[in-house]
Amino acid sequence: MVKTINDSKMSILIKNILLDDNRTDILIKGNRIATIAKNILQQADQIIDGTNKAVFPGLVNGHTHAAMTFFRGYGDDLPLEEWLNTKIWPNEKNLTDEIVYWGTKLACLEMIKTGTTTFNDMYFRFKEAARATDEMGIRGVFPQLMFDNLDPERGKIIQSQINYKDFESGYSKRIQFAIAPHAIYTVSGNSYKWAMDFATEHNIIVHTHLSETQTEYQNSIKNFGLSPIRYLNKLGVLKPNLVIAHCLWLDDDEIKMLADNDVKVVHNPNSNLKLASGHRFLYNEMQQKGICIGLGTDGCSSSNNLDMIEAMKMMSLLQKGWRLDPTALPAAEAIKVATQNGARILNINAGKIEEGRLADMFMVNTNTPAFTPLNNNTASNLVYAANGSHVDTVICDGKIIMKNRKIDGEEEIIKKANELVSKLIKH
Amino acid sequence: MVKTINDSKMSILIKNILLDDNRTDILIKGNRIATIAKNILQQADQIIDGTNKAVFPGLVNGHTHAAMTFFRGYGDDLPLEEWLNTKIWPNEKNLTDEIVYWGTKLACLEMIKTGTTTFNDMYFRFKEAARATDEMGIRGVFPQLMFDNLDPERGKIIQSQINYKDFESGYSKRIQFAIAPHAIYTVSGNSYKWAMDFATEHNIIVHTHLSETQTEYQNSIKNFGLSPIRYLNKLGVLKPNLVIAHCLWLDDDEIKMLADNDVKVVHNPNSNLKLASGHRFLYNEMQQKGICIGLGTDGCSSSNNLDMIEAMKMMSLLQKGWRLDPTALPAAEAIKVATQNGARILNINAGKIEEGRLADMFMVNTNTPAFTPLNNNTASNLVYAANGSHVDTVICDGKIIMKNRKIDGEEEIIKKANELVSKLIKH
Repeated sequence: MVKTINDSKMSILIKNILLDDNRTDILIKGNRIATIAKNILQQADQIIDGTNKAVFPGLVNGHTHAAMTFFRGYGDDLPLEEWLNTKIWPNEKNLTDEIVYWGTKLACLEMIKTGTTTFNDMYFRFKEAARATDEMGIRGVFPQLMFDNLDPERGKIIQSQINYKDFESGYSKRIQFAIAPHAIYTVSGNSYKWAMDFATEHNIIVHTHLSETQTEYQNSIKNFGLSPIRYLNKLGVLKPNLVIAHCLWLDDDEIKMLADNDVKVVHNPNSNLKLASGHRFLYNEMQQKGICIGLGTDGCSSSNNLDMIEAMKMMSLLQKGWRLDPTALPAAEAIKVATQNGARILNINAGKIEEGRLADMFMVNTNTPAFTPLNNNTASNLVYAANGSHVDTVICDGKIIMKNRKIDGEEEIIKKANELVSKLIKH
Repeated sequence: MVKTINDSKMSILIKNILLDDNRTDILIKGNRIATIAKNILQQADQIIDGTNKAVFPGLVNGHTHAAMTFFRGYGDDLPLEEWLNTKIWPNEKNLTDEIVYWGTKLACLEMIKTGTTTFNDMYFRFKEAARATDEMGIRGVFPQLMFDNLDPERGKIIQSQINYKDFESGYSKRIQFAIAPHAIYTVSGNSYKWAMDFATEHNIIVHTHLSETQTEYQNSIKNFGLSPIRYLNKLGVLKPNLVIAHCLWLDDDEIKMLADNDVKVVHNPNSNLKLASGHRFLYNEMQQKGICIGLGTDGCSSSNNLDMIEAMKMMSLLQKGWRLDPTALPAAEAIKVATQNGARILNINAGKIEEGRLADMFMVNTNTPAFTPLNNNTASNLVYAANGSHVDTVICDGKIIMKNRKIDGEEEIIKKANELVSKLIKH
């Protein structure tokens, strides 16, 4: 763990806050958590009174399509094929740099307001998304999206256009890049292999959709003679830097393949329900085999928000419900999935309020019905009783980016989004 | 529909608000909606600028145990029997009038803040709950709870102590009374029959838990030789004024019995998941047979909040998920279940924003990420993207009871709840 603290940078002292049901002070120096102790006497540039607050690690949204905020509420409650073919894909042809930039700003606004400090994106014009996120002050991982429509020749052209140098210049360290072959039904095996080689060379993650729907599973067997995970295994791309979104349809042997290769999985309960992909995510089975599972919201076209606190409740309650087991996935474990596991999946030294870690955290006001009474169980109140709107202060990379639910420039973002949506959605 | 409007009472004019995706004005006179039209020119005592707001009918929470707010977060993630035997029941022996009064006030505070204007309660010391609710300005139905531990002799003693006159004095018309035999495993058949006779005589509802868990279903067959609904059918208590909470475990013939007798059903998706009662609520099957289905949160010990907007999302997404059908229970239908159907179940002329109806409604601020962009689909944004915390104004019975999320006396309620909880929870 990196313990270097740059004392010349700004410091924040949080006084008397509830952390894991105990009162403590937290001193932040530069972008790191320097000290966690009762009654810290040091001076600091900024003081936060934590008397009526509880603090949690910043949430990590492991899978989303940020700029799809513009599609929120457009084409709900439709069969999947009709939704994609008549609502999403025809309109995505109208995407511009400006729309992706402001759509991502709107997403960041919503994420900050609901306690998320890091997200893993997957969308077109990823450099615009990265620029918007950098300006908003949170962390993001931005994979270049690959679609070759299963045509290896087209895949080669796409590969030749990807240059790692494009990823690096002009962004803060909060921004990381990655590579994202979209899915096995849109990307050839050769492009998957190329993406994994490229990612290994540059020490970045490969992000993909996999085993999301029963149809995808059945088509994989039909087209490749193998289930989705077996197919990727045969291609040799099951590696520790592979991050799979969804993973709903799989069997015990496939779970073992993922575990043996330390592949990471991101669960998206709201999207899986809303698109009717399924509800029986095999959390226990994967977790017991040692697979690192993160949590995501998916994009606003299918979730329809970016509220990770709501997603934690959905994840936990769904496990209890379909297993008929009230002890499944308790609140504290849901928080770990949405913070520590997410940070580990994205290789970020955050996800936990611990000395030496990056100072990414959010605070809630406990003088609200959802946190009354506290009953010495703030984890439960956060996951089961609250929602993202209870977040009142957010710190990312050692900077206060929201205080009392106010964020610089929020009115402009809402205004721009309302103006620009008509340039995107025309069908 | 009652169209009498008392012009001597206060009036409220809401200007230029979004109702069902169209801009309109709404004039409230006394406790009724008087006029819905564009550009109403009449004067009014109070004006609300609806420019950045959308309006929806006040939500009706069809099943809760309001004062159980005090148990929020206490004893989560435990097996049902252990939870009841070691956490809930031993501590409920410490209930006092004061605890029920303030626990209900806390519940009302949370309900108002999340858009609920009417609830159907079921708890001990119902007169204290009624008093607290009356003071908070919303509507409530308060059944006297009956437990005879399956002992008809004890049942007779309980029956002899119930006097309808006790129900009527000193409350406003927003408060109704009812009778609630708790469940078939705690109340004798004789007491169920007595309750239905009493309710019919006084034109009130009978509220009960039924077919909540698989264990209850199996024990009913073991003890009565009949499934829960068949057992109540044999007792002759399946009537239009019977309101059943849960109804998770039942077959087609039982659905027909409920439909034939116009029995009302209240679904509680969050509680059913969290207590692991089950997830396959047969919404389509019941709805197609004409059963009026409402929505509830259940108590904070099992839900763990009273947020009906969250409950709508859970209800809708769960149907889509387990049926693998993305078209199941669309957003607008979820709103109807949580408003119109709830009002019909409780015999209240609210649940819809319509001239002549009671003026019960809530407004959301649409200048927020969850409502951006609007995409001409505020119903979707409310159900799928927002949550109860997006409610900013609440009108009940023609009075503004919350404006800009501020409610008179809220600090005192939170303070009292935090003080009193140690008198309740000692185990």
